[in-house]
Amino acid sequence: MSHRSSRRFSIVLFEEFELLDVAGPLEILSKVEGWDTELLSPDGRPVGASQGVRFEVDGSYAQKSGDVLFIPGGLGTRTLARDEEFLRNLTSMANGASVVMSVCTGSALLAAAGLLEGYAATSNKRAFAWATGFGCDIDWRKSARWVHDRDRWTSSGVSAGTDMAAAFVAAECGVDVAREVASAIELRLNLDADEDPFAV
Amino acid sequence: MSHRSSRRFSIVLFEEFELLDVAGPLEILSKVEGWDTELLSPDGRPVGASQGVRFEVDGSYAQKSGDVLFIPGGLGTRTLARDEEFLRNLTSMANGASVVMSVCTGSALLAAAGLLEGYAATSNKRAFAWATGFGCDIDWRKSARWVHDRDRWTSSGVSAGTDMAAAFVAAECGVDVAREVASAIELRLNLDADEDPFAV
Repeated sequence: MSHRSSRRFSIVLFEEFELLDVAGPLEILSKVEGWDTELLSPDGRPVGASQGVRFEVDGSYAQKSGDVLFIPGGLGTRTLARDEEFLRNLTSMANGASVVMSVCTGSALLAAAGLLEGYAATSNKRAFAWATGFGCDIDWRKSARWVHDRDRWTSSGVSAGTDMAAAFVAAECGVDVAREVASAIELRLNLDADEDPFAV
Repeated sequence: MSHRSSRRFSIVLFEEFELLDVAGPLEILSKVEGWDTELLSPDGRPVGASQGVRFEVDGSYAQKSGDVLFIPGGLGTRTLARDEEFLRNLTSMANGASVVMSVCTGSALLAAAGLLEGYAATSNKRAFAWATGFGCDIDWRKSARWVHDRDRWTSSGVSAGTDMAAAFVAAECGVDVAREVASAIELRLNLDADEDPFAV
């Protein structure tokens, strides 16, 4: 699926990430010609999702080489949102990224690291009260499949990340490329960020 | 999410499987209380999806211990559908399974192994002509999000597997459990197998 932009996505994994938060967007993003992804774990060793699968990775956080930083959610965020070393690493990876993107409770990590100050954002709807307890000046949206505010993209829970990834493709490469990718994986495309059946 | 049945899913991986064929259903199935999954590769070593990620696995094909056999699709099926050793292994794993389930072009592998004879089935809509070239007496359905025929469940391409997994939960545990799982991952639930926007 051809277009003009070039993107490299650095996907930040941690123990107890949510499988579909990563796999849905990765499925979409990998179908775009000229786009590339790398999987990162804290130390470059394999890392496990809560759904019974461990991913091999391409490198450690320190080896991050992409221009789009992607943060999934999952049970692991509950401790990481209070982990100063992780938050410092996250901030370091976000510096220099042209886009920072999260799925589900990944936005709690961004908020805790101060990376959403002054932005509108959203998060998992079942963990909304917890996630929105982080940060100071964040315009948290209770009804949004995803929120795109300048260089920040944050989605609602799990499946919403797949819709956001398709919307990112549409924004970067045009709606026709997003339609083609969605059709290739027999996905009903939703490009309306305001269509949120799971609003708080 | 509580209910009465117990299931163990044996997920058959191979080089160049399609990531979301596995991750969508795994996300759903792992949310059901009392259900368990195992990931298998030919030799028990890690195995790679076409989307730039390698999975560690729980064992080899010979170590299969589940009662539901799950076969994804992907580019790797193109050679495996002609690979006699693989097809013998698949048949061996299917013997004794109480349910055999495929996503996308996984049904081409089942058909090539003779495991869909006398059944109705479906497959990826873009690879439909190729997939349906296998087998003799198979009622291939051109319009179906998934097909459930006795102990065989086959879905259309990629994203359709997630819908089929939710439908399997509904069939085994009731619609309320399927609704609860879908809601937890903010997935728009589709329990209508005939709703197929990608029909051939």
